[in-house]
Amino acid sequence: MNNSLGEIFRITSFGESHGDCIGIVVDGCPAGLPLTVEDIQQEADKRKSGRNRPLATARKEEDRVEIFSGIFNGRTTGAPIMMSIWNRNIDSSEYEKVIKLIRPGHADFTAWEKYGGFHDWRGSGRFSGRITAGFVMAGAVAKKLLATIGIETVAHVVEIGGIKADPPDDVSEIRRIMAENEVSCADVAAATRMIDAIKTAGRAGDSVGGVIEAWATGLPVGLGEPVFDTLEGCLAKAYFAIPAVKAVEFGAGAEVARMSGSDGNDPFAMVDGRVRTAGNNAGGILGGISNGMPLIARLAVKATPSIAKEQRTVDLTSGEEATLKVGGRHDTCIVPRAAVVAESMTAVVLADLALRGGFIGRIIK
Amino acid sequence: MNNSLGEIFRITSFGESHGDCIGIVVDGCPAGLPLTVEDIQQEADKRKSGRNRPLATARKEEDRVEIFSGIFNGRTTGAPIMMSIWNRNIDSSEYEKVIKLIRPGHADFTAWEKYGGFHDWRGSGRFSGRITAGFVMAGAVAKKLLATIGIETVAHVVEIGGIKADPPDDVSEIRRIMAENEVSCADVAAATRMIDAIKTAGRAGDSVGGVIEAWATGLPVGLGEPVFDTLEGCLAKAYFAIPAVKAVEFGAGAEVARMSGSDGNDPFAMVDGRVRTAGNNAGGILGGISNGMPLIARLAVKATPSIAKEQRTVDLTSGEEATLKVGGRHDTCIVPRAAVVAESMTAVVLADLALRGGFIGRIIK
Amino acid sequence: MNNSLGEIFRITSFGESHGDCIGIVVDGCPAGLPLTVEDIQQEADKRKSGRNRPLATARKEEDRVEIFSGIFNGRTTGAPIMMSIWNRNIDSSEYEKVIKLIRPGHADFTAWEKYGGFHDWRGSGRFSGRITAGFVMAGAVAKKLLATIGIETVAHVVEIGGIKADPPDDVSEIRRIMAENEVSCADVAAATRMIDAIKTAGRAGDSVGGVIEAWATGLPVGLGEPVFDTLEGCLAKAYFAIPAVKAVEFGAGAEVARMSGSDGNDPFAMVDGRVRTAGNNAGGILGGISNGMPLIARLAVKATPSIAKEQRTVDLTSGEEATLKVGGRHDTCIVPRAAVVAESMTAVVLADLALRGGFIGRIIK
Amino acid sequence: MNNSLGEIFRITSFGESHGDCIGIVVDGCPAGLPLTVEDIQQEADKRKSGRNRPLATARKEEDRVEIFSGIFNGRTTGAPIMMSIWNRNIDSSEYEKVIKLIRPGHADFTAWEKYGGFHDWRGSGRFSGRITAGFVMAGAVAKKLLATIGIETVAHVVEIGGIKADPPDDVSEIRRIMAENEVSCADVAAATRMIDAIKTAGRAGDSVGGVIEAWATGLPVGLGEPVFDTLEGCLAKAYFAIPAVKAVEFGAGAEVARMSGSDGNDPFAMVDGRVRTAGNNAGGILGGISNGMPLIARLAVKATPSIAKEQRTVDLTSGEEATLKVGGRHDTCIVPRAAVVAESMTAVVLADLALRGGFIGRIIK
Repeated sequence: MNNSLGEIFRITSFGESHGDCIGIVVDGCPAGLPLTVEDIQQEADKRKSGRNRPLATARKEEDRVEIFSGIFNGRTTGAPIMMSIWNRNIDSSEYEKVIKLIRPGHADFTAWEKYGGFHDWRGSGRFSGRITAGFVMAGAVAKKLLATIGIETVAHVVEIGGIKADPPDDVSEIRRIMAENEVSCADVAAATRMIDAIKTAGRAGDSVGGVIEAWATGLPVGLGEPVFDTLEGCLAKAYFAIPAVKAVEFGAGAEVARMSGSDGNDPFAMVDGRVRTAGNNAGGILGGISNGMPLIARLAVKATPSIAKEQRTVDLTSGEEATLKVGGRHDTCIVPRAAVVAESMTAVVLADLALRGGFIGRIIK
Repeated sequence: MNNSLGEIFRITSFGESHGDCIGIVVDGCPAGLPLTVEDIQQEADKRKSGRNRPLATARKEEDRVEIFSGIFNGRTTGAPIMMSIWNRNIDSSEYEKVIKLIRPGHADFTAWEKYGGFHDWRGSGRFSGRITAGFVMAGAVAKKLLATIGIETVAHVVEIGGIKADPPDDVSEIRRIMAENEVSCADVAAATRMIDAIKTAGRAGDSVGGVIEAWATGLPVGLGEPVFDTLEGCLAKAYFAIPAVKAVEFGAGAEVARMSGSDGNDPFAMVDGRVRTAGNNAGGILGGISNGMPLIARLAVKATPSIAKEQRTVDLTSGEEATLKVGGRHDTCIVPRAAVVAESMTAVVLADLALRGGFIGRIIK
Repeated sequence: MNNSLGEIFRITSFGESHGDCIGIVVDGCPAGLPLTVEDIQQEADKRKSGRNRPLATARKEEDRVEIFSGIFNGRTTGAPIMMSIWNRNIDSSEYEKVIKLIRPGHADFTAWEKYGGFHDWRGSGRFSGRITAGFVMAGAVAKKLLATIGIETVAHVVEIGGIKADPPDDVSEIRRIMAENEVSCADVAAATRMIDAIKTAGRAGDSVGGVIEAWATGLPVGLGEPVFDTLEGCLAKAYFAIPAVKAVEFGAGAEVARMSGSDGNDPFAMVDGRVRTAGNNAGGILGGISNGMPLIARLAVKATPSIAKEQRTVDLTSGEEATLKVGGRHDTCIVPRAAVVAESMTAVVLADLALRGGFIGRIIK
Repeated sequence: MNNSLGEIFRITSFGESHGDCIGIVVDGCPAGLPLTVEDIQQEADKRKSGRNRPLATARKEEDRVEIFSGIFNGRTTGAPIMMSIWNRNIDSSEYEKVIKLIRPGHADFTAWEKYGGFHDWRGSGRFSGRITAGFVMAGAVAKKLLATIGIETVAHVVEIGGIKADPPDDVSEIRRIMAENEVSCADVAAATRMIDAIKTAGRAGDSVGGVIEAWATGLPVGLGEPVFDTLEGCLAKAYFAIPAVKAVEFGAGAEVARMSGSDGNDPFAMVDGRVRTAGNNAGGILGGISNGMPLIARLAVKATPSIAKEQRTVDLTSGEEATLKVGGRHDTCIVPRAAVVAESMTAVVLADLALRGGFIGRIIK
């Protein structure tokens, strides 16, 4: 296992879904950044139920964040920040029944083989979406750090269950609209249909996936450390740590395959005395380096694999085929919650690259 | 800049397009692996012109590979393997004219800002597709190493200029068909149309992009080091180091967003006494770990940004808007050549994860 | 700050002396290793008062270890193991008086400058010897892991306050004798004199330093990853993370400077059918790689810088010279306690190198 | 094997003693630093024969440095700098005779076991002192980079064959005197006696070791990234990559074991309006961080293990004991040459820590 990410701003994740806690250590944050437990709690709360109101799991996740190190007199100290939430209200009984009845679409089988059956399978253990609570706590720190140089991040839902949104092309508009519905979608009409689609799937014992769009604005030109630590590559690696993400694209994304060079290239222009591009097919990235335009990424999230419908599987105990209906509490659609995590990971990666590129100093004054 | 990739099997890239050479250091390869310069040359030759015959750049890239360290008596020694090709037949004059006339879709602007104008801009320097020659040399080593445990990799072209291929679902068939056309496409009819599309675009002074599909077969269950070093994440990071890649997906990829849980989950089944999935929407990866099914990734590649058509841009010297037609030798479509690089990067990442997971020993006997 | 060490078996330290807790995350430990909180507690207890009885600080460090993740059904799971002790019985008042009256021999000044005054200075914060409690917890895991391949570690005190021990050349004898005195010295007579020296220094308001010898036995031939990750280099880096260590040597150590080649070279010999050396000036390491002989390192530890005697210093508030007597609870001699930490770090480094070299598998059965 | 060192300023070593070349890749050097091949050659020449005139190996090492990447218009570009020297005048015949007659004090045995006999044993391969030529080339870059912020490094010989020097306590005096003798010793009388000792040992077919003292001046307060990447730890790890180094100490070093707290603590004082210490037992490092005083390290180097005297060993072919006289060309004393390497490694480590700490920007103007 590797549970650390980043070179200077480096996060280390720990904890299991049904263990004692879920947490994160943030190392390498500059000293002097004002940071309170409320800053973290606010972000963690967004993840709990898809930022706004719950279509999500019935599990009561109080998830009170505690910070155990790295803060002194309301500011970061330069020392590692260890934060966690405690797991309560846990019932692992549903999982015990199905330990070896490996769930399709889940890590049950691969974890079993990789860790010799010694992994903590309760509530999916390390493979639960719940571990992303730690990512969000780290993201909260990263967001405050990025704010010191004017970088802001947001992630909204642009598709659920085949229903596509038509969001505005302006971050503050996106923020305003997405805050008003429980699927974090910046298109009111689409949001309503998305919610219907989720409910319909839920009633059928099924689930739905979707697409998240992550933005970062205010980036200086120069973030990214090619050839290997490109902005795209570092972000993609972080995004794929979010369970259920199966595709990541930037700017025009997969559509670039269908564009000619003359269509796809963003022409350069002078805007307010600065070099900008007309159009943003590049998603704010050229040669793996930020070009000063908004950074735009999209993540495709698969439907929750835990469904009440009967599925074919294998029982590892007997080595025979079997069927399975997954019980317990599961979101019909995790996309809005995953969007919060995507925003966090965007911030975590940008914070690291900003430090590596010398855009943020070692002391915040 | 960060020019190293991998934890145990770690590659370090160096060289510029119009500098003395393009090379790679492969560190961490186990000792005892039979390896000749011909093994490397064979892969490097594939990259030169899209694996087969040239639709590609007119630049004569003899590109004779030399190995300077790490091999003794025909085998790897456990020491770093330094390999390079020498740059010859170089004409940087075309670039000199346009140093500060930043090319749309290229890294000219971002490199200028990030490196203060000190970067080697000749032939795009470190941002040239030519540096992937080093990736391919490293891939050749990785492929031989993976072969010792039965892992094979291949990458073929599944779309160019909007024309989609309908390739067979079998690796040896894919290999056989793709070898017979110059766009490395495993669909004869589509290949013909792709070639036409490339020629048409070329005549118009334009360029086209496409989609590459990378496969790896023979994987044991257990490759991948979640939560951060997932198979998807490590591969994606490596793929995004290939210039022009703007989207990466695995298995059903972006389509998962439109699938319900019951559609998208691959049911488990027993096949020849082993656990396998019926279907492969997961692309061979569950929880970031290989599940024993073929690994399948797709990369969207944008059209070559260097085009003969006139484009709007900015002259950094004057800070004024200008127009530009990019001259010099450029591929109308780099997708077939990029496929060779994608295959190499797949191998490089899998070699590292196989070593990290203990699937390959430290001495090959 | 960098608070992580190791490539595969990687530890991440967090916590401050007078903060909430002191802890460690151990990532990369193979799954299946039997591990209980008692295993950890036992090692942590040794550190509390120099392994045996206290000559040490009067601070009541109950230091009950808790494991919060990574253990399931009494075994490691392959997931990160987060462990900590809680800080209680804390009185920071003594420190408040002297925040800016920088203590000679301490990190007060360098921390102030490096972290802009934002560091947690209470009880020396991250620079307190107390943070090594986390190292010892990690060492406990490493020791259990190493035991699975027959590697054992020990560290004993060979010098305090100028009094040198004449210990036996046999690990089990060393263990037996050192366990019987409170300075962990494997020479009964020397131990008595060391204790006197400590008491004398204490009465004078002064402190004493000494030398620790760390052993590891049962090493296979082949641990170490030269040229940069030599066994010496990796161990030395870890040892210098122990506060107050100012010199590290291996085998004959600094004395090699005075030996001729014919004196210093350890001749090879066959012993019980295996290649061994006659003599061990190399300290078990040749070319940065273990040679199968006992690994022997020595660490020089400076006298506790916190002394009751008056010292000259500077007041950062006024920028003027001043004098200072350090109050509070401080060990007159930390060498016996540091020995426990040295043993832990030896184990941590060897565990990582054993995993990197393929000497320990990814699942312990 | 791990052949990379550093986080931002990262060097990757390659090449074998009797292979094609010895080289280094320097990644992470900021763009804009003026750098010529002569800058590198000048440092490489120092290593060839102990900085001054040869008491050293008879092998004619012309060692003309070539830079193959990363430099453009006389300045660094931010891209990896690949440099190497070519191996010529090679005679491996002496080694062939003794492949399996493992040389005491050498890595023959450990390399054989670790790499399964596949390592390049010619001229000691990767374990030859010759690979440090690459370290010195990297050091040359680091020195130029450090000079931009006023940091200078030097290493001189303070002991050979038991003869101790009494050097001045001033860097420019050290430089002046050491330049006048072939053992790089800053004590004229001692130098003469050292040279005699070397000659005497050589005539007896034996060899001698010694001690190097490395200095760095002009350091800002704040270099070092504790708790694990302390200044001492990072330097020690780098020093132990130099073959034959068996002990590393800082400031008063091993002597701290015999000092009381009141003797060992360096009192703080105000000097020219800046906080300085009276005395430098700390060697310029407190809490793993530079304190603005000169950094002082000492490295004990063992006598050249290759000696003409008969030694007892084992023949790995037969598994029987045997005797061996090592022929070929070997230095009687490598200490003056190792001093050049020690200086280089000091610079390499400080460059990395200066970049990590934000003391050097990403572009040099």
